[in-house]
Amino acid sequence: MLDRILEFLYKKEGYVSGEDISRQLGITRQALWKHIHELKDLGYDIAALPHQGYRVIASPDRLFPFEIQPRLNTRIMARKILYFEALSSTMEIALKHAIAHAPEGTLVVAESQTKGKGRLGRDWFSPKYKGIYLSLILRPEIAPREASILTLLAAVSICEAVKSTTGIDAQIKWPNDILIHNKKAGGILTELSAEMDKVFFIIIGMGLNVNNDKRSLYPGSTSLCEHMKEGISRLDVVCESLRRIEDNYLFFKRNGGQRILESWRNFNVTLGRRVRVVSHREQVEGEAVDIDSDGGLLVRGDSGLLDKFLAGDIVHCR
Amino acid sequence: MLDRILEFLYKKEGYVSGEDISRQLGITRQALWKHIHELKDLGYDIAALPHQGYRVIASPDRLFPFEIQPRLNTRIMARKILYFEALSSTMEIALKHAIAHAPEGTLVVAESQTKGKGRLGRDWFSPKYKGIYLSLILRPEIAPREASILTLLAAVSICEAVKSTTGIDAQIKWPNDILIHNKKAGGILTELSAEMDKVFFIIIGMGLNVNNDKRSLYPGSTSLCEHMKEGISRLDVVCESLRRIEDNYLFFKRNGGQRILESWRNFNVTLGRRVRVVSHREQVEGEAVDIDSDGGLLVRGDSGLLDKFLAGDIVHCR
Repeated sequence: MLDRILEFLYKKEGYVSGEDISRQLGITRQALWKHIHELKDLGYDIAALPHQGYRVIASPDRLFPFEIQPRLNTRIMARKILYFEALSSTMEIALKHAIAHAPEGTLVVAESQTKGKGRLGRDWFSPKYKGIYLSLILRPEIAPREASILTLLAAVSICEAVKSTTGIDAQIKWPNDILIHNKKAGGILTELSAEMDKVFFIIIGMGLNVNNDKRSLYPGSTSLCEHMKEGISRLDVVCESLRRIEDNYLFFKRNGGQRILESWRNFNVTLGRRVRVVSHREQVEGEAVDIDSDGGLLVRGDSGLLDKFLAGDIVHCR
Repeated sequence: MLDRILEFLYKKEGYVSGEDISRQLGITRQALWKHIHELKDLGYDIAALPHQGYRVIASPDRLFPFEIQPRLNTRIMARKILYFEALSSTMEIALKHAIAHAPEGTLVVAESQTKGKGRLGRDWFSPKYKGIYLSLILRPEIAPREASILTLLAAVSICEAVKSTTGIDAQIKWPNDILIHNKKAGGILTELSAEMDKVFFIIIGMGLNVNNDKRSLYPGSTSLCEHMKEGISRLDVVCESLRRIEDNYLFFKRNGGQRILESWRNFNVTLGRRVRVVSHREQVEGEAVDIDSDGGLLVRGDSGLLDKFLAGDIVHCR
């Protein structure tokens, strides 16, 4: 109901008559009044004038499902949204729902996380209302070894969304860091459940620093707002990211991963550089030459031999 | 307590004094009498003579934890056992426990399954007390792409266990079918939960037809007892399988997968044959040349090109 009331209020400049809204939604004036107060409690600044009605003065930058869904025109992504003010980790909640057969595209989104997850058991600092913390459940018909392409797909989609909503040129550091001017602003985490032949589901997690000021950032990290004069609408970035993910995902399902790889190469800041790859088994230094269709990084070592890495951390050398 | 009472009864030929058992276990005669009746209810044939005590005439072939555990000397496998007369699927229950942080080596074992799982969503027919249906939770420090080796490891271990307990030469059809005289007697199912860099856990499922007569077998399948004059102790096969899995697993963790691949080549019935590989994308016919370290099957097509398959079904051609 809140989404439908907001739709009325957003549709028109100026005041909207309470009587009109009530009549068209088939609710009483009293019920409408109650819902308006719910919205105020959620942070909406709504003016009310006798004989004129209601008007939204300001909306809070919250990732409410009833704000996200009307802005999307997606067939898969975020048709179902689980929203939390705070939770342990969107990955953890998404996993529970994925096992309980949540449909493809189910979105778990939170305003803050107490145990935000990064790769390899690392933390993701998730202060309230500052960043974007979400997980998406996908059910592609692929084998587990093909899953990496979806990490690349998510990273590409987010760079596209950041560019189109803020103009900022975000870049990708292999495999999944989102950088702005060579500082980390976000990351993608991909988890999967599978048998050897077939993925059951994949959960794509995304953490992105948006309105974080210096105090709500890890040293050496950055946020979108550090590169803008004004605060940024997290809602805009989330919605555009979901749209881009859907477009890229549908294209991938029809045509395979070639275009994702090309886009990734355009956004990436790793290829052509001297890198040190640190995996749990070894450490290799050389030139990052390319990624292959598995999302693996091809590194030409100093001996001239080409090595392929499917996992690990890299350091960009000077 | 049942395990300790059985230990006393099994230790000695002939009757064991109830007074001795009670005293040494620190329980009353009445409590002992109650436990003896519990064992009788579970299918144990226990004789009782005044002034002489108790004696086990016959044990049922059940996979009770208190029968399995004293027979093992393992550090990891089956230190924790979840036992069920009947359940949906051992994979499903193991998954729940794996997510709830069950320790490595946790065994889920059932006398029957109502929804036994095979590969690719297929059924595994699981009639009561006839076969072995179990799942093992492993937590190896490997990347998802290395998980296939554990499927091969389980298949090899089961062939070893079948040979040593029954003398039957079981064979492996790529990737994970257990054959006896070219008919299917069992299979391995491997599921994993992982991020791109790191496996969280792997669940190895095993289904093996043991005492199934013709009526409790799918057409074209076989069971161990079809190749023996007598009934087979499922308990012996389970315990030996767990011991072999542990040995091979510890060796793999120390030394890598090379020995598993060699054992697999010895047991396999696929390499060197003409095969048709049917995967969800394609269908290829050629000669099965080898498996590689990922567990992938290398097939030389009629054009002479070598193809690698990580998943799919194969048909052995004439």
